[in-house]
Amino acid sequence: MAARRRLKAVLIDLSGTLHVEDSAVPGAQEALARLRRAPVSVRFVTNTTKECRRMLVERLHGLDFHIEEHEIFTSLSAACRQVERAGVRPLLLLHDSALEDFAGIETSDPNAVVIGLAPEHFNYQTMNKAFRLLLEGAPLIAIHKARYYKRKDGLALGPGPFVTGLEYATDTQATVVGKPEKTFFLEALRELDCQPEEAVMIGDDARDDVGGAQNSGMLGILVKTGKYRPGDEAKINPSPHVTCDSFPQAVDHILQHLL
Amino acid sequence: MAARRRLKAVLIDLSGTLHVEDSAVPGAQEALARLRRAPVSVRFVTNTTKECRRMLVERLHGLDFHIEEHEIFTSLSAACRQVERAGVRPLLLLHDSALEDFAGIETSDPNAVVIGLAPEHFNYQTMNKAFRLLLEGAPLIAIHKARYYKRKDGLALGPGPFVTGLEYATDTQATVVGKPEKTFFLEALRELDCQPEEAVMIGDDARDDVGGAQNSGMLGILVKTGKYRPGDEAKINPSPHVTCDSFPQAVDHILQHLL
Repeated sequence: MAARRRLKAVLIDLSGTLHVEDSAVPGAQEALARLRRAPVSVRFVTNTTKECRRMLVERLHGLDFHIEEHEIFTSLSAACRQVERAGVRPLLLLHDSALEDFAGIETSDPNAVVIGLAPEHFNYQTMNKAFRLLLEGAPLIAIHKARYYKRKDGLALGPGPFVTGLEYATDTQATVVGKPEKTFFLEALRELDCQPEEAVMIGDDARDDVGGAQNSGMLGILVKTGKYRPGDEAKINPSPHVTCDSFPQAVDHILQHLL
Repeated sequence: MAARRRLKAVLIDLSGTLHVEDSAVPGAQEALARLRRAPVSVRFVTNTTKECRRMLVERLHGLDFHIEEHEIFTSLSAACRQVERAGVRPLLLLHDSALEDFAGIETSDPNAVVIGLAPEHFNYQTMNKAFRLLLEGAPLIAIHKARYYKRKDGLALGPGPFVTGLEYATDTQATVVGKPEKTFFLEALRELDCQPEEAVMIGDDARDDVGGAQNSGMLGILVKTGKYRPGDEAKINPSPHVTCDSFPQAVDHILQHLL
């Protein structure tokens, strides 16, 4: 802790941290308002492959959170920046609802592949199209590599198996852009003029939120809501800076100990 | 060579060895007839995920090869034996033309997954169905794990990427039944009452035919037809017992040196 600088930014996970499915975490709206009165920047970071920022903001407004679209940084935003930086024209294997975040990106005559959770594209013909682009040297950009996710009717395949299949077919490695990648957290801070040592991340996922943030030099606060299960603290090394019952306690900790 | 016993069986690859696409290798029919007059058993072994034995035999008859269906052992045959041995009811992710080799196998209420090259099944819904069976403990049996194959319109994905995706999603390993697996060659010999040290394999694929056979204790003869490329001999260790220009020379070598 000796080398840490004054806290300048707080990154906050959305699903599982501010809300669980369609319910806000009790007291989270008020806690966010308190945090905003402190002299720190706030950004919201999430791994999503299906929802553009506008949809996320609409859901949050519906839960009475005061959050603006430009304050949200998602794995889709990270993929978009990666595409812009590389100057490539992506084949977008993404759910239709994600495409809005790629408005303005040139996609004709593609020379790159961006892949998220896109069941409608996970058929042989489209996978083959991606495969052939990769053989020609196109980079493979993965929103994330989740093995599966929970659906109402049970577990269902995530994008990870399809990314892995393309990696295997072409003997290449995808560039993963979502949490827990270090670059994701650095990109989220980029426009804040803030070093990782000046930031803290709050989230319910020990590996993706807390571990990823801490690997990039930030502090990480784990909250016991959402996907948290007892013992999750021990899954990462170093362990979280602190584990709090929920988002409001995490805000209290920041206001009392980190400012 | 000192420890070898008298040769009892010759295993012969089909595509690339006896024929290349729709043309027989020159002299191959006559060479096969010569081999059959020698006191050895002959079996034909091939990795196929799309063609049942009846279809293979029809093509070979069309090229004037005298081969009977029961003499052919394929990766589909190997999968079928694996299913019978395990006493499971497979979800068959196979091309329709392969299903004939599984006639009589119970497939209702599946508790295993057999996967080959089956573009019509490689969609999200079916992959998800397989995924859920695997989560419940169903074994995953892969015909083979080829990354891709050559089609008239260019390279196309093989079954390997889809097998690998399911392995990644469920953190399990498929049982691969085709060449170059040791069990494949041992199964091919099973009904011949013949040890691997009493058998030789002839094929055009250094790794899958020759390397696989030699790893199971047989001799391996590489032929310079089909997919052979100069230098292939060096891709395996130990190198092939001998490399011959084509199948007729391989037969000559056997008749002159191995009997």
